Amino acid sequence: MTDHIKDQSSSARAEGSGLRVAIIGHAFMGVAHTHAWRTAPRFFPMTRTPEVALLVGRDEARTREAAARLQIAEIETDWRRAVEREDIDIVDICTPGNTHAEIALAALAAGKHVLCEKPLANSVSEAEAMTAAAQKAAVHGVRSFCGFSYRRTPALALAKRFVEEGRLGDIRHVRAQYLQDWLSDADAPLNWRLDKDKAGSGALGDIGAHSVDAAQWVCGQQIEGVSAMMHTFVESRPVAGTAEGLGGSAAAGAERGPVTVDDAAAFTARFSGGAIGVFESTRFALGRRNANRLEINGSLGSIAFDFERMNQLEYFDGRDDQAAQGFRTIQVTDAVHPYTDHWWPVGHGLGYGDLFVHQVADVVAALESDASPRPDFSDALTVQRVLHAVEASAGDGSRYTPVDQTAELRAGN
Amino acid sequence: MTDHIKDQSSSARAEGSGLRVAIIGHAFMGVAHTHAWRTAPRFFPMTRTPEVALLVGRDEARTREAAARLQIAEIETDWRRAVEREDIDIVDICTPGNTHAEIALAALAAGKHVLCEKPLANSVSEAEAMTAAAQKAAVHGVRSFCGFSYRRTPALALAKRFVEEGRLGDIRHVRAQYLQDWLSDADAPLNWRLDKDKAGSGALGDIGAHSVDAAQWVCGQQIEGVSAMMHTFVESRPVAGTAEGLGGSAAAGAERGPVTVDDAAAFTARFSGGAIGVFESTRFALGRRNANRLEINGSLGSIAFDFERMNQLEYFDGRDDQAAQGFRTIQVTDAVHPYTDHWWPVGHGLGYGDLFVHQVADVVAALESDASPRPDFSDALTVQRVLHAVEASAGDGSRYTPVDQTAELRAGN
Amino acid sequence: MTDHIKDQSSSARAEGSGLRVAIIGHAFMGVAHTHAWRTAPRFFPMTRTPEVALLVGRDEARTREAAARLQIAEIETDWRRAVEREDIDIVDICTPGNTHAEIALAALAAGKHVLCEKPLANSVSEAEAMTAAAQKAAVHGVRSFCGFSYRRTPALALAKRFVEEGRLGDIRHVRAQYLQDWLSDADAPLNWRLDKDKAGSGALGDIGAHSVDAAQWVCGQQIEGVSAMMHTFVESRPVAGTAEGLGGSAAAGAERGPVTVDDAAAFTARFSGGAIGVFESTRFALGRRNANRLEINGSLGSIAFDFERMNQLEYFDGRDDQAAQGFRTIQVTDAVHPYTDHWWPVGHGLGYGDLFVHQVADVVAALESDASPRPDFSDALTVQRVLHAVEASAGDGSRYTPVDQTAELRAGN
Amino acid sequence: MTDHIKDQSSSARAEGSGLRVAIIGHAFMGVAHTHAWRTAPRFFPMTRTPEVALLVGRDEARTREAAARLQIAEIETDWRRAVEREDIDIVDICTPGNTHAEIALAALAAGKHVLCEKPLANSVSEAEAMTAAAQKAAVHGVRSFCGFSYRRTPALALAKRFVEEGRLGDIRHVRAQYLQDWLSDADAPLNWRLDKDKAGSGALGDIGAHSVDAAQWVCGQQIEGVSAMMHTFVESRPVAGTAEGLGGSAAAGAERGPVTVDDAAAFTARFSGGAIGVFESTRFALGRRNANRLEINGSLGSIAFDFERMNQLEYFDGRDDQAAQGFRTIQVTDAVHPYTDHWWPVGHGLGYGDLFVHQVADVVAALESDASPRPDFSDALTVQRVLHAVEASAGDGSRYTPVDQTAELRAGN
Repeated sequence: MTDHIKDQSSSARAEGSGLRVAIIGHAFMGVAHTHAWRTAPRFFPMTRTPEVALLVGRDEARTREAAARLQIAEIETDWRRAVEREDIDIVDICTPGNTHAEIALAALAAGKHVLCEKPLANSVSEAEAMTAAAQKAAVHGVRSFCGFSYRRTPALALAKRFVEEGRLGDIRHVRAQYLQDWLSDADAPLNWRLDKDKAGSGALGDIGAHSVDAAQWVCGQQIEGVSAMMHTFVESRPVAGTAEGLGGSAAAGAERGPVTVDDAAAFTARFSGGAIGVFESTRFALGRRNANRLEINGSLGSIAFDFERMNQLEYFDGRDDQAAQGFRTIQVTDAVHPYTDHWWPVGHGLGYGDLFVHQVADVVAALESDASPRPDFSDALTVQRVLHAVEASAGDGSRYTPVDQTAELRAGN
Repeated sequence: MTDHIKDQSSSARAEGSGLRVAIIGHAFMGVAHTHAWRTAPRFFPMTRTPEVALLVGRDEARTREAAARLQIAEIETDWRRAVEREDIDIVDICTPGNTHAEIALAALAAGKHVLCEKPLANSVSEAEAMTAAAQKAAVHGVRSFCGFSYRRTPALALAKRFVEEGRLGDIRHVRAQYLQDWLSDADAPLNWRLDKDKAGSGALGDIGAHSVDAAQWVCGQQIEGVSAMMHTFVESRPVAGTAEGLGGSAAAGAERGPVTVDDAAAFTARFSGGAIGVFESTRFALGRRNANRLEINGSLGSIAFDFERMNQLEYFDGRDDQAAQGFRTIQVTDAVHPYTDHWWPVGHGLGYGDLFVHQVADVVAALESDASPRPDFSDALTVQRVLHAVEASAGDGSRYTPVDQTAELRAGN
Repeated sequence: MTDHIKDQSSSARAEGSGLRVAIIGHAFMGVAHTHAWRTAPRFFPMTRTPEVALLVGRDEARTREAAARLQIAEIETDWRRAVEREDIDIVDICTPGNTHAEIALAALAAGKHVLCEKPLANSVSEAEAMTAAAQKAAVHGVRSFCGFSYRRTPALALAKRFVEEGRLGDIRHVRAQYLQDWLSDADAPLNWRLDKDKAGSGALGDIGAHSVDAAQWVCGQQIEGVSAMMHTFVESRPVAGTAEGLGGSAAAGAERGPVTVDDAAAFTARFSGGAIGVFESTRFALGRRNANRLEINGSLGSIAFDFERMNQLEYFDGRDDQAAQGFRTIQVTDAVHPYTDHWWPVGHGLGYGDLFVHQVADVVAALESDASPRPDFSDALTVQRVLHAVEASAGDGSRYTPVDQTAELRAGN
Repeated sequence: MTDHIKDQSSSARAEGSGLRVAIIGHAFMGVAHTHAWRTAPRFFPMTRTPEVALLVGRDEARTREAAARLQIAEIETDWRRAVEREDIDIVDICTPGNTHAEIALAALAAGKHVLCEKPLANSVSEAEAMTAAAQKAAVHGVRSFCGFSYRRTPALALAKRFVEEGRLGDIRHVRAQYLQDWLSDADAPLNWRLDKDKAGSGALGDIGAHSVDAAQWVCGQQIEGVSAMMHTFVESRPVAGTAEGLGGSAAAGAERGPVTVDDAAAFTARFSGGAIGVFESTRFALGRRNANRLEINGSLGSIAFDFERMNQLEYFDGRDDQAAQGFRTIQVTDAVHPYTDHWWPVGHGLGYGDLFVHQVADVVAALESDASPRPDFSDALTVQRVLHAVEASAGDGSRYTPVDQTAELRAGN
């Protein structure tokens, strides 16, 4: 099969040639990604300019409507067509997790670069297969990326820089919370995110995955074991005629269907470098709209972040003189901060949508330099393995469960 | 002359026809506006789709380079060409204040809709002439807008809605601060914003103008008089070879030139509805990167806003039961909030650049409905008159100086 | 033995008679309690006025010095003398945890009311013995109290009131962190709080106990089981000549002794009413001086508290209209708030020391009305049982460990 | 008259002799002062131990009731008796401003040390007379103090220390707000604070005086001129039977009496060292319970304070490396911070009442060392002169009005 992978290594592509992108899916993520591919080249210098060439959706009418609004010239209703087309360079997967593996494997086999939304897959075995395929394709210059977009938050990127600079010293504590509240209403309707077959898991995979990736990435340490508790507060919900949205209370008396995923997940963790972690993910933290929080305490310094104030990073420097120590609220909008010099003058903050612009900039930069981009599928696999251990521990009386990050890849053998 | 204004009234334009925009200027504001014209139709439904057709800059090489980066097909080096061209519907003025009047008057005379950056002009008489021309052009369906973009912040738009709903009761206090710090370094170089001939004034016109507009708009009251103090802390600065940027310290020993504008302006004010106000604008508030703040206290409620946390509005409801009263930190990211239903799920905030997208959406909506848009030139004129009174009071021993908002327009007579 | 318990029931004591208090211990807690007994009657009306009659310490010279500073007339160097004296009504135990049981049992047997600092004891069996003795003594009107002083924080008392009023609805999440940083420096010296024999445990018993008590008390639910992880980051520390203080870096090269307690403890929990909890206690959260935090999310509302801003409570009311929802920052300094009407006008906040004044006021009010005071020894026993389960789980691979709150009391049989 | 001043210079008083205090007034301030005289010696080492010997109030029954609650042995109903008594060392004046001058002058003449609540007096001429008398008495070792208690806030004292250490560089901006809301309700009843004859002025003298003193003291600069606006929002209020309290809404239809003071005062200012200031004081800032705020921006650093979080100081160090700059939230509870080493371990904050304890400690330390205490009457006179200039400017069309701090003292000539 390897024989047929289209070679994408630097020698094989023209300098300055464009990058034609097919977007698979046109919901929340499809819109965010399309916007980003369009915007990135106007703010970040790039020699290979991306172009959104194709939108793929199952329902023709709705896909056509979305393409019109998003100003995309062509549509397809079968993702296989996008993978087969000669003129597509990048397949950008924005569909639910249960479809990722099949699409990604086919796209890699066809020699397309792949950007896949997180979580990489709904199971470790799928994620392993994808990672194996990605490693095989990489030989031909075909690249894989996973869309952990919060890494592109300037404040979190600054936190990582601070860790790398040694400002935190030895890391002792990681405290990661991802708190939402859109299921607090027990009569909010069912949707695909509450269906284990489609979503894989609930709060854990949807938002906890972000916490795990951010924590490992910022710390530069991997999670080695977890002890977990998962819980479903509301076990059945109204079946809505249109259950696509997030939240909204359904009419009383509506038929109810089962919630098959976790409403909340909490776990303690041990990291490879000696830190201990406490993680919590929930959609029932009433009043917390999107509180993606990370705090890290080291022997020399600490950082704290909350996405509800995404342009700020709290930083404590234990080497400041004693009388003047305190958490600094850094406005991460300065020209010396990650990403921000491409945008506005100091103090004029960025928004959620801009993170995807940064992601595109990073992806294109990696392709331009033929570098190994991050996070690639193997990075995402480490997250998948942590999620798996969390579920295993929760199913085994919270017993401490090691995460085997050295396990051989199953697929591709 | 009126005879020659191209008629833009609803009967005269085709349903669904596009809107071709010429951007005059390609610095900070030119980039922000271009981005916004491109992005708006993908998030806000519109029947007349805008297209950035032309970029105008004085220096051909630099304009060509900017156009390439911004993906704009055509350039001109003389704004008069943009005004003359038949195929341009909107002239979008993103140049320093001293050029606004000439360009806007010509564009209106040619029957172009005009979006002009703030401050509207560098003097009241210019602003009056522009307003008179805009009123004359309006008869032909030609529209004028002024770019007080902070009105498009969801949190400030929500504050205005709260005032209109009566949630604040009678307004007593307005407290507006616009604090920046990019001139704190006494060796930061000279640039055009420190040159009275080009900028009109310093902190007052650049950022104080935003405070005045926001305060009047949110309160629904006009400022009737002011008592002011203005100050220049650093009276000369190094002449930099490339003095275009904001901030940055120049080499010691460089030649110094005079700062001819205010570094800071502070004034008390009386509003038409009985409120009293305290305003402060400065670029010397070390540590405050872009703290555009507004607090309003009424008889029933209060609001407080700080742009450094632009997705939040503080709201106090004095009718809450006594034991549970407190300022509410509203995450202004909900579907029921202004603008936000067009973007991301709840809690995923917006950025500075998105304000300009909202501005475009509002401008296009006004053009589509042939409504009178806001703020138009006459709104901007009220701000100009306040700024003028501030300068007059500061020059007259801080004496209380009425603002004559009923003065007849001079121009066009 | 019961025969000899001095009867303290309401019929047996004179109206308006004073309350003579013996303070055992004159370190941090002894000072705080002495201050409180003195201050309470001046701010809270009471018919039985307390008087600090006696200070007990082992070292005569140091006890005498402390008594002089604290203006206490008499001292003893043996706590048994305090217990034996006829003129003492209340024995107030402010010594390390390993001495609590012996002193308290003797005092109760002698018919003295006992106020005992937390944690109640260093083991469940001691705590059970104390509780049994307290229940026996209660028949004679002799009262027992445990000093979980954070219950006296107006903001936490308000949180409890909100739960009781149903403002939070069904409680789903409890999030309790107690973060300190005085051991972050790996060369901070050993002291008794790091010695398992004296302190029982480390961060868990010292500060985690406060979190457990506050969470159970505010929620009105008991913890039914836990899954825990404990960790010691720094396993030996310099032996200081005067290792009494908190923190301070010792000279290099000093002899080091072992740390025999946990530096940090984290656990997940299930509550009797269906809530799930996440707890973390540490002295290594660099930059967090005394962040005793509690957040509770219910189906109707949420509260959040951080002792670093002890006069504020965050409260979210999910029934507020959608556009105006947000966490309210309540200044808990109003006359309608717990305790605060006895102090200053609204907005003039209280301090840590004032909590002990409230504790005295509550203790005296209970004695005056012959009511069952809270928390009594049996309340403190429930905390002790949770701490025990935490240690058991941590020692058993984090396995979920039930807390048996119905276990029969061992002592007194 | 000088002949009769009792000599209090160091040679004249015994080492370690006590300090007998007479408290004049038993409302809010009388209680706070009494508490402080009692508490200070237990936390701050002093060789001359204060004793509250006498409480003075006009109404015998109410004074007797207060003395019982405050555990003060003796009362008087005429302050002249306190002044005359041989056994009184300190007269502590806690009455409304219109009585200060008479009492203080008599006390000084009698050789008593005087601690006088702020504002020092209701007019400049009274303040001058008091200052002249104090200077005369000082020759005999008799000391005068004015109770600007906010100077005793550890966070503000730390701010002053930072200024003195040069951490802020050249001061450019002073931003002082004192915001309360207890008059927001237009039907809150009249009380003496709304009566010009008793209170001198309204928000200006009551709370604005604190801002003026704090700003001058922290900056080490004096205000040289002001431009002011004063306003009364509610010109009449119900006459309550018991109009002693702060706030509370009166019955409809009650007789109304005139409000003769300002509800709010705002002014801009110029400082002796080149800074410019913006001040605002109001009791109509709905939701702001006691927001006594001070922000200072210098060329090297900034500080910001809000009494609603009194244990914290915000500090910005412009010399931090660019990527890590931000306002530090200092928990001012460390042993190296002002006052706090006498209290609790780090992180256990103080309350409003504790400020008065610090004041007593400072007063006693001054008396012990025979040092010139601060603020003395002449410091308070500088505040009085600023308030006077504010009223003059407000009455003269906000015209800039110099503050003559060099004016000769009128009294005593």
